[in-house]
Amino acid sequence: MHRCDLGLIGWGTVGGGVTRILAQDGGLLRERCGLDLRLKTIVTRNPSRAREAPAAGAAVTDRLDAILADDAIRTVIHLVGGTAEATEICRACLNAGKNVVTANKAMLALHGDELFQLAADRGLCIAFEAAVAGGIPVIAALRDGLVANHIQAIYAILNGTCNYILSKMESEGRGYREALADAQRLGYAETDPTLDVDGTDTAHKLAILARIAFNGRIPFAAIRTEGIQSITFDDIRSAHTMGCRIKLLAVAQRRSNGLELRVAPTLVPVDHPLASVSANYNGIFIQGHAVGTTLLVGQGAGAMPTASAVLADVVDICTGRYQATANRFTFFTQASPVSLLPENEELTGSYARFLVPDRAGVLAGIATILSKHGVSLLSIHQAAPDREGQAIIEAVTHPHRGGSFLKAVEEIDHSALTVRPTVTLRRL
Amino acid sequence: MHRCDLGLIGWGTVGGGVTRILAQDGGLLRERCGLDLRLKTIVTRNPSRAREAPAAGAAVTDRLDAILADDAIRTVIHLVGGTAEATEICRACLNAGKNVVTANKAMLALHGDELFQLAADRGLCIAFEAAVAGGIPVIAALRDGLVANHIQAIYAILNGTCNYILSKMESEGRGYREALADAQRLGYAETDPTLDVDGTDTAHKLAILARIAFNGRIPFAAIRTEGIQSITFDDIRSAHTMGCRIKLLAVAQRRSNGLELRVAPTLVPVDHPLASVSANYNGIFIQGHAVGTTLLVGQGAGAMPTASAVLADVVDICTGRYQATANRFTFFTQASPVSLLPENEELTGSYARFLVPDRAGVLAGIATILSKHGVSLLSIHQAAPDREGQAIIEAVTHPHRGGSFLKAVEEIDHSALTVRPTVTLRRL
Repeated sequence: MHRCDLGLIGWGTVGGGVTRILAQDGGLLRERCGLDLRLKTIVTRNPSRAREAPAAGAAVTDRLDAILADDAIRTVIHLVGGTAEATEICRACLNAGKNVVTANKAMLALHGDELFQLAADRGLCIAFEAAVAGGIPVIAALRDGLVANHIQAIYAILNGTCNYILSKMESEGRGYREALADAQRLGYAETDPTLDVDGTDTAHKLAILARIAFNGRIPFAAIRTEGIQSITFDDIRSAHTMGCRIKLLAVAQRRSNGLELRVAPTLVPVDHPLASVSANYNGIFIQGHAVGTTLLVGQGAGAMPTASAVLADVVDICTGRYQATANRFTFFTQASPVSLLPENEELTGSYARFLVPDRAGVLAGIATILSKHGVSLLSIHQAAPDREGQAIIEAVTHPHRGGSFLKAVEEIDHSALTVRPTVTLRRL
Repeated sequence: MHRCDLGLIGWGTVGGGVTRILAQDGGLLRERCGLDLRLKTIVTRNPSRAREAPAAGAAVTDRLDAILADDAIRTVIHLVGGTAEATEICRACLNAGKNVVTANKAMLALHGDELFQLAADRGLCIAFEAAVAGGIPVIAALRDGLVANHIQAIYAILNGTCNYILSKMESEGRGYREALADAQRLGYAETDPTLDVDGTDTAHKLAILARIAFNGRIPFAAIRTEGIQSITFDDIRSAHTMGCRIKLLAVAQRRSNGLELRVAPTLVPVDHPLASVSANYNGIFIQGHAVGTTLLVGQGAGAMPTASAVLADVVDICTGRYQATANRFTFFTQASPVSLLPENEELTGSYARFLVPDRAGVLAGIATILSKHGVSLLSIHQAAPDREGQAIIEAVTHPHRGGSFLKAVEEIDHSALTVRPTVTLRRL
């Protein structure tokens, strides 16, 4: 039996899951892999929490030094949110000679270069399975299971809040605000849901996945990111008409001349495996040159699923496995950035909904401008005009250069062919 | 750069995938994880294959000793089919001091106890990601990613041949024989498909998954196994009427009094994630107490997907990670068998299709006998009688003891309530 003393910094939702598993299921890990995990110290802003939550035998304090100065603690579970303070605490742990297990995706997306290098310099490691897609072991799958693959594409639903809102809008015909309020009531969305709904959280996770898949630095600011705040029930209904669902999709797509990285609400055909990933679930669809396509689905957040991933990392470190990974895999400290394609070089299918006056020649006018910009149509259809004499034309394109489509739509809107600015979405 | 000399025994379909990746994509592994994998020697019954396939720089021979006696080769890729010879060769590799990477599920299901113990005694390891579900990294997910979970259930589609046949029967209205012939023509089924279609191959894989998930020996012969040979298009159509698809399902279900293990054609409701796993794909649905439900889907067979898993294992061994796993995880050499439930203690939903004479009281008679045996119905419906005056009654039950349902059906068939032996299937 190998004993490992652990520290925990940050005792919120996920920390509560970790202490619960360690308190109740420590025997499982002793039996399964011969590890005796002892949570020695918990550092939290609110030590009085110990009165309600099981601390798994740990001392509870608000002094960070109780962990940093304790040489018996070699591994720290870092569940601090935000970026600035979290990064500082992570640095302090590494400087104090401790391995770090973290669930903080923002910290790694923004400061991963520095932190991974610091860990490498000190002969330590940072494990982060819990930072992406909660309990789904996608970091390990991508890094180890698919190690012999050139990754061609990753399409992923990585934010349960957004997926819940979009699923609810579709299944119950609700507007965005109502569905968001519902998600907040159920605890699927924060009181301030900005980083979820504006796509930032998804972009953080995409940056981490892309770092591993494409083995290079990912300049976070270069990821084009759109959120779901302006999606309407009309969009959902239109998607349905086109045989699609709208998902907030993280996309990493290797092209011959570089990598496309983006986060955007996207029409996903209903027969695509990701279309069935609903409610607060996450799903990651990966294409590798050897493995073909694989899909991983599961709970992307929540106390227990995320704690499951945290403890998988703890076991990896306490068995010595993770050190072998961190010492060898180059994505941790890769100096060169991945080459990203500018937006006008991206290849993407698109959807547009034009609101047009009911007069002859409008459809032809639109088709002509699209064609002039080299955009080729997969389908186009026009509904009967409403009582105000306005009609909706919906078009879906084959994959094409993203920039040319947006230019074509701009020209259409400026040619008085439409009566309102045109709604556009990506299509998988 | 860390150089690893490898041997390959068995140069068939999967071996061809391995040599292809090593020949073409060795640079990927050098760059990604600093490993210089050198295939030094290939042992094959048919060395003349070297004229058509890239040998990745290896010497090709039919002498096993060329690998066994070569001390530079520390790790052997073992792609030998069957059981007796494969086991003997695996033993010989271990006795010669070599780690083994194998894709042979039958060997591990039947002789895993002996082989894992031998490996442990010699300080070596046997890696086997490729033995279950091809390219899907499910072994690692279950062993490492979900290590902190009490696994409550595994439901899995593990045989691409069967899944292809069942999908084809459904989508094209074909009979079993036609769909099988189709699968053979496309290379999805062997000339002798017995071990696939009778469920044995699925049971081998289930035994391996259950060994890891439930941390004990799995007596292979105790797995109740039914195949798909007697599934008719009528069954597929009936399933459709009940809102289900038929899948050959491997089931491991933890109950308070023991473990259910079985392989059987099973009605899966269309809204269950496994119902969408079609054609030659594999899917594994896992319930853990912390992670909730996760689903992994991908190519379960084929040269390149399986080679992807083989090379993941090779990397795990050459980085030293796998040794840390094999030294510590107890399922490899666990002495105690898992406690399996006898059939009459199993809890399972069931489906029955009764062919009955068109006379009053038959439905009541059937319902009475089912109820007498404690079987509670989820739904029952009777179609209008055909021209011969015979009617079909279809019933789906809530989960109940498996034995009591079969006894009830037997009593119904013996009570002259039916005109033909009743068709029964499991229901998820």
